Amino acid sequence: MVANHVDHALGRVTALSDGIFAVAITLLVLSISVPDLGNSQTDANLQAHLREAIPSIFGFVISFAVVGIFWLSHHRLFQVVREYDRPTLYANLLFLMTICFIPFPAGVLARYGELTTAVIFYAASTAFVGFTLALLWWVAIIRSAHRKAQRRMGRYFGLRAAGTSIIFLISIPVALINVDAARFVWLAIPAVLVIVSRIYGSEVRDEIRPSI
Amino acid sequence: MVANHVDHALGRVTALSDGIFAVAITLLVLSISVPDLGNSQTDANLQAHLREAIPSIFGFVISFAVVGIFWLSHHRLFQVVREYDRPTLYANLLFLMTICFIPFPAGVLARYGELTTAVIFYAASTAFVGFTLALLWWVAIIRSAHRKAQRRMGRYFGLRAAGTSIIFLISIPVALINVDAARFVWLAIPAVLVIVSRIYGSEVRDEIRPSI
Amino acid sequence: MVANHVDHALGRVTALSDGIFAVAITLLVLSISVPDLGNSQTDANLQAHLREAIPSIFGFVISFAVVGIFWLSHHRLFQVVREYDRPTLYANLLFLMTICFIPFPAGVLARYGELTTAVIFYAASTAFVGFTLALLWWVAIIRSAHRKAQRRMGRYFGLRAAGTSIIFLISIPVALINVDAARFVWLAIPAVLVIVSRIYGSEVRDEIRPSI
Amino acid sequence: MVANHVDHALGRVTALSDGIFAVAITLLVLSISVPDLGNSQTDANLQAHLREAIPSIFGFVISFAVVGIFWLSHHRLFQVVREYDRPTLYANLLFLMTICFIPFPAGVLARYGELTTAVIFYAASTAFVGFTLALLWWVAIIRSAHRKAQRRMGRYFGLRAAGTSIIFLISIPVALINVDAARFVWLAIPAVLVIVSRIYGSEVRDEIRPSI
Repeated sequence: MVANHVDHALGRVTALSDGIFAVAITLLVLSISVPDLGNSQTDANLQAHLREAIPSIFGFVISFAVVGIFWLSHHRLFQVVREYDRPTLYANLLFLMTICFIPFPAGVLARYGELTTAVIFYAASTAFVGFTLALLWWVAIIRSAHRKAQRRMGRYFGLRAAGTSIIFLISIPVALINVDAARFVWLAIPAVLVIVSRIYGSEVRDEIRPSI
Repeated sequence: MVANHVDHALGRVTALSDGIFAVAITLLVLSISVPDLGNSQTDANLQAHLREAIPSIFGFVISFAVVGIFWLSHHRLFQVVREYDRPTLYANLLFLMTICFIPFPAGVLARYGELTTAVIFYAASTAFVGFTLALLWWVAIIRSAHRKAQRRMGRYFGLRAAGTSIIFLISIPVALINVDAARFVWLAIPAVLVIVSRIYGSEVRDEIRPSI
Repeated sequence: MVANHVDHALGRVTALSDGIFAVAITLLVLSISVPDLGNSQTDANLQAHLREAIPSIFGFVISFAVVGIFWLSHHRLFQVVREYDRPTLYANLLFLMTICFIPFPAGVLARYGELTTAVIFYAASTAFVGFTLALLWWVAIIRSAHRKAQRRMGRYFGLRAAGTSIIFLISIPVALINVDAARFVWLAIPAVLVIVSRIYGSEVRDEIRPSI
Repeated sequence: MVANHVDHALGRVTALSDGIFAVAITLLVLSISVPDLGNSQTDANLQAHLREAIPSIFGFVISFAVVGIFWLSHHRLFQVVREYDRPTLYANLLFLMTICFIPFPAGVLARYGELTTAVIFYAASTAFVGFTLALLWWVAIIRSAHRKAQRRMGRYFGLRAAGTSIIFLISIPVALINVDAARFVWLAIPAVLVIVSRIYGSEVRDEIRPSI
């Protein structure tokens, strides 16, 4: 009965979380605005406007991938959490707040992607999301872990979240020198995730296996 | 079978509720509008516009926190509800309607936060949400409570919801004197929640504990 | 196992349905547009604009109530459905399409509520939603009902859905004479629901009771 | 316990998927923009604008049907999936990304439906969604199928997804000749689905039957 209670409670926390993820990730498409052709409603003009939208579409793909990676991490976290307390609840709400915020810097990046300020604002915002996710791993798993294996797993995924943030932080000074180079730094994120996985992944493989 | 029926029915009520919470809370970010730089697409101009967006971002954080607190209360309510009837269903829909409405006053506040009218409109709207939540606690829990402990719990959370509303109401005359001071009044909400928790919380601790 | 399969499948149908309801009902608030004060950013001007928004807010409340009534009916339908087939699936998608569409006529009504055309367009659209809901009751419950009680229940709720539509249809000729009178006709919907409930409700009370 | 774990994990994957489907499908209505009557707020003018919105509404219906068909396929896939691995997870996220993207080409089509470029952009985007869905069927079901029946089923639904894409690809050269003819090609999709069902459906009927 009590277990059922806790399960139902956890169910609602993940339901709200998934709902927020779904809405935030779908709102990203609104940052690609339907072009306004004005008086020149010709195919040539629409093609030109769609070509101009390519950076926005590229930005949409990156933001989707970033939020998707964060969702995967959150998804794993709630597979491990068995009992959750008030600090976990608040850390989760803080993380969700930063997820909700992402469409704003993504919109700024989509519109002014050639400006250094837009790239830095986006990188800083996304780094912040990653740190709140690492904090959530700490509060929900590491802090209260009873078993050593669980603590190890928390450290592993907390490290992945923080690693993603650090890549975004590194891209900030790069953007000051060259805006386009900063975007290439972001492409290093999958590499970092793989490296963390190679170094620390073997220790936690047994815990992760059944959960994906 | 019947129990299963009721569980499934409750599941859909909470699914709709969580969906509405997720959408409403994520729509709040749309109140921070992506700046329009016009012809001056420079870093300096974008930085100036982002600085101007800080009050909007601050408003987003407050609105997220307020809706988050209301969600936590709603979450607890549906952990306690075991059977629910028509009045509960309608009270829940009324509460959800006010939650859906929040993005409008939040948008007005984000855009015209320096105007007394915007602050008062936001405070009055949010106070209204809190009162419909207190009403929901009354209808769903207190009214039909069979056990004394449950009635006590309903009173505790109803009081918290009403307390949040009262802080927003108090901020209205304050806003007539000084708009910025009104926002500081809102920061008293966590304090009120803690005070209610200190005074009445001990009585309901046992009921709340398993459900967070 | 098979029962579990069907349950999970039904679970996803209701999950999509609730998600669509949640998004559509929350998008209604976007029809109340945050006023644009232009150069006159004064309290007096904002108050004037908020006063002008009152019909939009009234329209939001009506649309929320209508979609809420449709959700309640859909909610009851899926409490009764035990096995569902392809026609039910398609009838459900058709109904959901009309629910998704509602924010458009609601937006037109919010902006041009004083024009006869806007009122008629809204009434016709909403009547259409009600008829697709009645169709869904017919396809999902009445058509394939094995037990007489279930057929009776399907007729009862199908009648309620069709009754809501008929009120909206009646309001169309009324709108041609007087726009404001048409809105008052809509207020007759709860009365019609109560009348249908009084006349036919006693027959189905036993089936509805456990499921609300 | 482990089975329960996997079920809960699958539950969250479908919850996120259904959430994204629900938001993306409901955002389609935003592509029908509420007309701006300017200074001429008359019934005649609103009627003219609503008549002009008919192609947008038609586009909304088509997009809803297309996303609905994709959802049905996805729904069936997750009824069959019993264990899912990392490649499935990534293929699902890729498919969901293309679903999230749909409101953009749908918005372009709604606004510039008479331009060849808009029709081709929409057809190419939707074909891409269909191919990622076919890929998902391959990764999730065919690739790892243990039983011959399951592989057959994966091929059947993968073929349906790819068939939908091929119709959209065929409509592209047609659009170069005649824009309106391209839309009529799209109406062939249900026919293709029925033909695939007639030819290959009998082989998989037993596997599908219990799941719908």
